[in-house]
Amino acid sequence: MKKVTTATASTYAGQRIKIHGHIHAVRSLGALAFIILRDRNGFLQVVVNSSAVVLRPELPVVVSGLLQAHKTKPGEWELHAEEITPLSQACAALPVEISKEKRMEGLGLPALLDYRPLTLRNRAVRAIFKIEAEICRAFREFLVQEEFTEIHTPKIVATGTEGGAQLFALDYFGRQAYLAQSPQFYKQMMVAVFERVYEIGPVYRAEEHNTPRHLNEYLSMDIEMGFIENEQTLINLQTKLLAHIFAQLQENCAFELALYGCKVPTLTQIPQIKLADAHLLLRNKLGWQPREAESEDLDPEAERLLCSYFAQEEGCDLVYVTDYPWAVRPFYAMPAKAGKASHSFDLLFRGLEITTGGQRIHEYDQLLWSLETRGMKAEHFADYLQCFRYGMPPHGGLAIGLERLTKQLLGLSNVRQASLFPRDGNRISP
Amino acid sequence: MKKVTTATASTYAGQRIKIHGHIHAVRSLGALAFIILRDRNGFLQVVVNSSAVVLRPELPVVVSGLLQAHKTKPGEWELHAEEITPLSQACAALPVEISKEKRMEGLGLPALLDYRPLTLRNRAVRAIFKIEAEICRAFREFLVQEEFTEIHTPKIVATGTEGGAQLFALDYFGRQAYLAQSPQFYKQMMVAVFERVYEIGPVYRAEEHNTPRHLNEYLSMDIEMGFIENEQTLINLQTKLLAHIFAQLQENCAFELALYGCKVPTLTQIPQIKLADAHLLLRNKLGWQPREAESEDLDPEAERLLCSYFAQEEGCDLVYVTDYPWAVRPFYAMPAKAGKASHSFDLLFRGLEITTGGQRIHEYDQLLWSLETRGMKAEHFADYLQCFRYGMPPHGGLAIGLERLTKQLLGLSNVRQASLFPRDGNRISP
Repeated sequence: MKKVTTATASTYAGQRIKIHGHIHAVRSLGALAFIILRDRNGFLQVVVNSSAVVLRPELPVVVSGLLQAHKTKPGEWELHAEEITPLSQACAALPVEISKEKRMEGLGLPALLDYRPLTLRNRAVRAIFKIEAEICRAFREFLVQEEFTEIHTPKIVATGTEGGAQLFALDYFGRQAYLAQSPQFYKQMMVAVFERVYEIGPVYRAEEHNTPRHLNEYLSMDIEMGFIENEQTLINLQTKLLAHIFAQLQENCAFELALYGCKVPTLTQIPQIKLADAHLLLRNKLGWQPREAESEDLDPEAERLLCSYFAQEEGCDLVYVTDYPWAVRPFYAMPAKAGKASHSFDLLFRGLEITTGGQRIHEYDQLLWSLETRGMKAEHFADYLQCFRYGMPPHGGLAIGLERLTKQLLGLSNVRQASLFPRDGNRISP
Repeated sequence: MKKVTTATASTYAGQRIKIHGHIHAVRSLGALAFIILRDRNGFLQVVVNSSAVVLRPELPVVVSGLLQAHKTKPGEWELHAEEITPLSQACAALPVEISKEKRMEGLGLPALLDYRPLTLRNRAVRAIFKIEAEICRAFREFLVQEEFTEIHTPKIVATGTEGGAQLFALDYFGRQAYLAQSPQFYKQMMVAVFERVYEIGPVYRAEEHNTPRHLNEYLSMDIEMGFIENEQTLINLQTKLLAHIFAQLQENCAFELALYGCKVPTLTQIPQIKLADAHLLLRNKLGWQPREAESEDLDPEAERLLCSYFAQEEGCDLVYVTDYPWAVRPFYAMPAKAGKASHSFDLLFRGLEITTGGQRIHEYDQLLWSLETRGMKAEHFADYLQCFRYGMPPHGGLAIGLERLTKQLLGLSNVRQASLFPRDGNRISP
């Protein structure tokens, strides 16, 4: 008897097979029970003599029997069980109905997260993380082709990358240490080693925000590359990278995308707008009412308005906002030669910023000037400054928030839904 | 003029090319200077009119010129520079000689780590991390083929996996939280979601050890899978996984391995020995003098003796030690049906433990019994225990220490050498 999964079962039609999984759903009809069996690949209907064994949702079982054409759905198969063996004696009744709710949205966010080990087993909830795994795979695949090297930088650090605010502090053998808010300094140092590097890893922000867009621990997909022209080198790279990710998702996650009615963008080019022009457009044409009258950045409303505009006018769900004022970017951002702008950009996707990036300062003296201008102390950044004294090439990079990208792609209402076990102001468990 | 890298240059022999990189080494000979140029792929000799520009090691440059056959080394090429443009004004003299020392071993570990952004640029030091990137790639590639799904679990957690010792504590918005010592509980929860999962991520041990084998932050390559027979399912999987990793390294990192004179093991099977039998062998035949007379575990000396024995007797650099007493393993380890052993194992590689793994308890009642037996409180593990109440399949997993695997493979003397920016009792920077 062949041991199969739900992915390979159909090639054994008319044969006796053995398969394992969890009972996802069960429906009794007189002497028969109809089970939906869930395994790592998908789902299969199993017909059982219901007196055979106590059948409950989530029970792990091994089933053997004959695979036959589905009685009512042409092209589908069902397994007529001859033997079904439970693999656990557990018998508690489920506090949430994993199989019934289409996307578990009716449950509400607190319960969705409180019962996370259970709600993740829902078909649509699980799909979110299948998609994230595929995004990571496509990200790495593209970058390896482009001769990037994967790095792993420490998350316990001695200083913040932006001067000390919003850091989680910890006691490190009697010394004060922090959780890294970004691999920024390390990935820049690695440019002189490998020229092109990437990292997917956790980053930490001790922000008290409680919004649908913020997590206190999230996955940052970081890129840094040397010998660039300017920020346009990075913009071009990321456009190709996203096109590759979207194409791979379409190819390998069609089932999961369909659960969210998700249309993946087809990318060739992404429009760009300078921040100052975006402000004019927003105020003069799109009716933006900024939260703070003098704000130089874009608030969530502005991000949504801009994206709607470009979706309508240029048919693109993404837009780069460029030329941010140098003063609102970190000290390592490369200022423009003239004026107050910097060689930096954000990428907005369907109304939300998912990427921040830009060219960095690569001259030691200019970094000292930048720190001084901002009233920051060079001695706090001695480790970082070290490698600029011997020569760094023009370089830059970007960071994509994995959970935000996923949220926007699937149209989730809260970024917490795109984190397996999210961390926010109120939640450190499960 | 074609823009090339050191990897593609040779296909443009006799042509004019443009290439960028850092000056890795420079040697003047009268009016000529011979540069070794380093880029992301490798090295290339460049011949320059030395009056053209000030040439210093580590200066980033763009060079254009004619690629010709090397004067003295047949089959190699050198670039006769027509133009060389520095990309940085930096001019500090290097505190360490990056290109001279073969593996920077003469420098000593403290200097090697203090000047990490520079010493990583050394040919052999850089090679270590090229190899680690390839190990990660091969690990993921194999597991995706085996239908494992990548997961990302939180590193900020509410409880330790083994009861609270050796945890780094942090203040999380006024609450006590910890850095995860392992993704153990989360990866087990994910078995009921994806059946087979893996994660490469940082883990944290607040151990005050100062040994060549320990790091306080290291990369754990974690695997967990459901519906296993017993621990032998995991042992078989890992043997195939390591064979794949080693084969991929041989194929893609031959240059880097050669710098360490490293022979990669060819694996078909890995011998196994029960811990009790290992004790007998060590005491009766291998002259082991245990550090602690009554120790149930193996000390470093025992690990070395055992590996030497199996290398000599069975020609294998790896050996599984199985059947550890249940009492010395964590509470979630599956005890044997009879006797005091557990379904667990360690894998030793050239004298050092690189993997710990085993089958886990999957019945709720047995977990409660285990916690009680050890005097631990079930309420501290409520989140973890939750999913066992509804049915978990027989499952287990393992964790490989990336830096230890690399250390043993390359014969490095200290595991810190296999961490980009290591964290130990004295070091949180660079």
